[in-house]
Amino acid sequence: MDSSQLINTAKVNVRYQTDRALQSQKDISTEERERLVIITNEQPWKPWQRSRSWAKECLGKVRCVMGSLVGMEWYCFAALGVLTALLSFLMDLSVEKLLRAHQWLYSQLDGHSLLQFLSWTLFPVSLCAVSTSFSQSLSPFSAGSGIPEVRTMLSGVEMPHYLSLTNLFAKYVGLICTLAAGRTVFLGKVGPFVHLSTMVGGYLNRLCTVLRGEKEEKTEGAMLVVAAAVGVASCFGAPISGVLFSVEVMSSHFSLRDYCPCFFAAACGALTFRMLSVWSSGQETLQALFQTNFSDDFPFYPLEILVFIILGMLCGACSCVYLFCHRWILQFVKTNKILSKILSTEKALYSAILVFLLASLTFPLSAGQYMASNLTMKQLLTSLLDNRQWTSQPQNASVVMQPQPCPWSEWCPLGNPCLTLGFFLVMKLWMLVLACTLPLPAGYFMPVFIYGAAIGRLVGEGLTYVSLNGIYLEQDGNPINPGGYALAGAAAFSGAVTHTLSPALLALELTGQSTHATPILLATLVANALARSGQRPSFYDALSISKKLPHVPSLLKVCPKLFSVAIRKVLSPTGPVLERAAGPEEVQHVLNTSTQTQIPVVDTLGTNILLGSMNRSDLQTFLCHNQNTRFKKQLRDICSIQPVSVQISPDTTVQEMKRMMEDLANDL
Amino acid sequence: MDSSQLINTAKVNVRYQTDRALQSQKDISTEERERLVIITNEQPWKPWQRSRSWAKECLGKVRCVMGSLVGMEWYCFAALGVLTALLSFLMDLSVEKLLRAHQWLYSQLDGHSLLQFLSWTLFPVSLCAVSTSFSQSLSPFSAGSGIPEVRTMLSGVEMPHYLSLTNLFAKYVGLICTLAAGRTVFLGKVGPFVHLSTMVGGYLNRLCTVLRGEKEEKTEGAMLVVAAAVGVASCFGAPISGVLFSVEVMSSHFSLRDYCPCFFAAACGALTFRMLSVWSSGQETLQALFQTNFSDDFPFYPLEILVFIILGMLCGACSCVYLFCHRWILQFVKTNKILSKILSTEKALYSAILVFLLASLTFPLSAGQYMASNLTMKQLLTSLLDNRQWTSQPQNASVVMQPQPCPWSEWCPLGNPCLTLGFFLVMKLWMLVLACTLPLPAGYFMPVFIYGAAIGRLVGEGLTYVSLNGIYLEQDGNPINPGGYALAGAAAFSGAVTHTLSPALLALELTGQSTHATPILLATLVANALARSGQRPSFYDALSISKKLPHVPSLLKVCPKLFSVAIRKVLSPTGPVLERAAGPEEVQHVLNTSTQTQIPVVDTLGTNILLGSMNRSDLQTFLCHNQNTRFKKQLRDICSIQPVSVQISPDTTVQEMKRMMEDLANDL
Repeated sequence: MDSSQLINTAKVNVRYQTDRALQSQKDISTEERERLVIITNEQPWKPWQRSRSWAKECLGKVRCVMGSLVGMEWYCFAALGVLTALLSFLMDLSVEKLLRAHQWLYSQLDGHSLLQFLSWTLFPVSLCAVSTSFSQSLSPFSAGSGIPEVRTMLSGVEMPHYLSLTNLFAKYVGLICTLAAGRTVFLGKVGPFVHLSTMVGGYLNRLCTVLRGEKEEKTEGAMLVVAAAVGVASCFGAPISGVLFSVEVMSSHFSLRDYCPCFFAAACGALTFRMLSVWSSGQETLQALFQTNFSDDFPFYPLEILVFIILGMLCGACSCVYLFCHRWILQFVKTNKILSKILSTEKALYSAILVFLLASLTFPLSAGQYMASNLTMKQLLTSLLDNRQWTSQPQNASVVMQPQPCPWSEWCPLGNPCLTLGFFLVMKLWMLVLACTLPLPAGYFMPVFIYGAAIGRLVGEGLTYVSLNGIYLEQDGNPINPGGYALAGAAAFSGAVTHTLSPALLALELTGQSTHATPILLATLVANALARSGQRPSFYDALSISKKLPHVPSLLKVCPKLFSVAIRKVLSPTGPVLERAAGPEEVQHVLNTSTQTQIPVVDTLGTNILLGSMNRSDLQTFLCHNQNTRFKKQLRDICSIQPVSVQISPDTTVQEMKRMMEDLANDL
Repeated sequence: MDSSQLINTAKVNVRYQTDRALQSQKDISTEERERLVIITNEQPWKPWQRSRSWAKECLGKVRCVMGSLVGMEWYCFAALGVLTALLSFLMDLSVEKLLRAHQWLYSQLDGHSLLQFLSWTLFPVSLCAVSTSFSQSLSPFSAGSGIPEVRTMLSGVEMPHYLSLTNLFAKYVGLICTLAAGRTVFLGKVGPFVHLSTMVGGYLNRLCTVLRGEKEEKTEGAMLVVAAAVGVASCFGAPISGVLFSVEVMSSHFSLRDYCPCFFAAACGALTFRMLSVWSSGQETLQALFQTNFSDDFPFYPLEILVFIILGMLCGACSCVYLFCHRWILQFVKTNKILSKILSTEKALYSAILVFLLASLTFPLSAGQYMASNLTMKQLLTSLLDNRQWTSQPQNASVVMQPQPCPWSEWCPLGNPCLTLGFFLVMKLWMLVLACTLPLPAGYFMPVFIYGAAIGRLVGEGLTYVSLNGIYLEQDGNPINPGGYALAGAAAFSGAVTHTLSPALLALELTGQSTHATPILLATLVANALARSGQRPSFYDALSISKKLPHVPSLLKVCPKLFSVAIRKVLSPTGPVLERAAGPEEVQHVLNTSTQTQIPVVDTLGTNILLGSMNRSDLQTFLCHNQNTRFKKQLRDICSIQPVSVQISPDTTVQEMKRMMEDLANDL
């Protein structure tokens, strides 16, 4: 058999393989086909043999040089950060363009109220309908936040559809449409971005495996944990809070081995995101996303700490109301027959109707003017974090002062910003709860963050009003900064809703100032304590329960006393058990009541130490034996106990053993 | 038997008990005696029966009310934070008074060089001698940093002496003396403070157990982890980095259940510490410990990121040199006969001689003037973080400008601060390494932090000099801030020395500004990568090794590839093993070569799956049987395999199971 024959045989083999591959195309997933492509790359029927082999050699050399510096996975972590930041930046760019188009259209129609109303409502309606139908038709898994799914995947459940390229594309485009309608539907970016980041991470993990030339795929665990951190970091340019978010969302599943990779990838992501902003906008330097101008020398009076703690309590209480409404609407949408029918068949129609309702309510010429709905979400947060006081000077001051104009006129249509803030809070609560039912890719963190900022601002403005009227402080002292309260409220409320503490750090990183670090942390802790007190599920838990995701409820988190509870109180034997020294009567009774083929055997019924199990047939033999002979034998003489054992062979890898233990530990 | 008789009997019983207690006084430890006191409290021979019972009742009611709000341990966490912060504040106060006394004495003797020299040297010499002899005589465990010991305790090793009240007192007083000599010996506060905090935590844990009326003491684990976070938080008023420090020092032993308690206690500690500073110094508001005035609007040019990364590399390289010197001196002190003899008998003398050497080198009228040794450690760090440039304007500038005076004249005795900084770095390196051998309570983090700041400042001043000479930037641009480089250098160097990332966050919290968050994090990551590259031990690891502490080296940290290594490569069977289907020859061979009473049995020698063990006697029976009879029986027919099994009974608590798994997981 000469070489040409060999090549022919190879060709036939290849053709056979590809034919088979085509036949079973529907059965195998995209990933497997890709792996097949890599395998068939080795085949000699492809063009440019020489240049391909030369390129391959070069790549191999580069790989060697790179691999000699640090492990290949570190390049993947860096690439993950850079890619996700790029995605985030491009998304921000497109959303800004779309928002500006809407603004332009609206301002061009000035004077024609009806046309303005139509442009105000139909633009988000069409965007959300597109978002819903596009993402649903491509991948039904792309709707919603994605964080509950990511959490489930991180806990070890394999959900390949949630990491597919189709899902990535559907989610990305859908999210751009949702965010472009942000002024009316009031939804955010973080959750889906964490999901997008995990998809990128999943792909990079496979690439990393190929680059290292390994056959077996390494578990995606580490990469997914890192990706969760990168998602937050490249969304806000906040690396440290990204890592803390990853730690918290992962809860007991976080392995501290992933700590350094998390920091590294998050720093890469945050740096890329900020550098891209600098280069695109012609900024001179890297700046925080929501740069504030709080006074460094005098951030707050020491006594204000008490007000911050009260604000934390208020935010905790509000979060309980919000979470209750959210759980109720999730339940209602599922149980209501009409709604569930519409949601199962006409998702785009449902989105369109709901968004039309929300948009008409926020129309700036009607109720919208009392909700500052002219502002985009970014402007809303910037305005709420403003360090200038909105409350104008009182008229009865001894010196005649010009009443200061409100720096954000959108918040003061009635002169008093407190009224607008109160109306905003009341309306947005149920509008936000309604918006959560929209079947499109959307994040729920940013709206909650802004809602909390509004609560804080209300408290801050109230305190300013009181202090200006001379009740608390003399007028020549340092002015109270309501922006600080807004920031603390944002962190506390979003922390309470999600049952996490990382928003406290996020608030610092978003504003680039850490003057308020201690009060913000205190408010977040107090709000969290209140929100967790009733052992109610968090926002993500509620979503997991509603979506029936394989949700591992951390019992130890809910009930810390469990640690000293004996297992007998948690688990009870489901069927009858045999004592080791059981007589024929007990055996007969057990055989009558149980239908299992193996009967568990315990030491004594008092101690209940499980020794193993006995076969049903052996027990029957024992009974027969006892009936026949006069000298009654004991159970142990006839039946052997098959012991309960955990077998560990030398081929068990360290990882398998560790996972086995972790699985057991996680189940607790 | 009437009531008086009963009381008499009780009295006799009590006397008998107390007699026995006195007899065995030498045997039982302080804690046990305390428990005995609590038990005998119930006895009726003590005075004020009624008022005591009334007080007891009231306390019980208070306990019920407090317990109904949150678990009793939360009060303990809060108390831990407040107490540690109080200790930290009182220590700072006393140290400041002592430092001021030294400064006053030195300035009063102005003009008398010899007297000045004596006052400069003898003051720290006497303080360090007192510190050494006092702490060594009270408790020999109080010397050094304490972090390696805390780490060992946290990994589950019980070391009761390290948590005793005597040790607390010895360490506290010794540390005050050490810090008061800070200008010359250049040692810090963090490490011992973490240790002090764990001692307070240990006591509060016992108190918590008593308050809850539980008999069994709960494990101290959680309290110690929380205490580690509180130690850092109340030392610097930096809660978040305290928690991260705790996470990192604990490494794989950190349980995420302790995350919220850590944050809560650290926030309490940081708040108390800062409030105490406000009240004592008459400040108007809470401020960061090393408040900086970096420009918020223009912190740095985007291109400077590259310089920050180079600075990270430089710090990583320097840390390797420092760690090498540190390991060498630890080895040298142990192996050198003269030194080890002095250190075992005349510790105070050694301290005095070494401190005299260090003090005479730092004498401000000799070499000390080129090391800015007039400044205390706090002033050193403040001066290094100054945002003004020290380099004066070049003479050849077109406009004739007055050369700006150096804002910190201590750093510019020669006109050029770079020379002073270089001299400072060279001298302090070996002085610091020498100071690490002093047998007194002292922290090594703060000196390393300041050393890193000096490296960063040198790079920053160098860059300023280059930019002022028009090579890189035009003069009318924004000025470069050398303070930012100092901060990044401090975080990167201390992070590299301790192999942690939390200094990056600490740098932000210490200065109260997060403008430089991204470059600092990048520099710290790069420095850490370099420092960890050779798998050399960190600063704490080296101390653990040198002190021969039960040190669990995290294999997975040193060798991450271990995860996919089969156990057979790590563990090999120590003796001969039997195959299940072994014949008489193999059995004879095994019996000849092995002396164990139980022989391990595997499935086949190829798979090596351990099935259990066989008794030696059984095997001998098998051999006899085979020699006697003609029909050779198989091994399994005669000998029964005792299987390897893990038995879990219903009385196993969830905690026991979890610990069992964690122990196994930790051993990997």
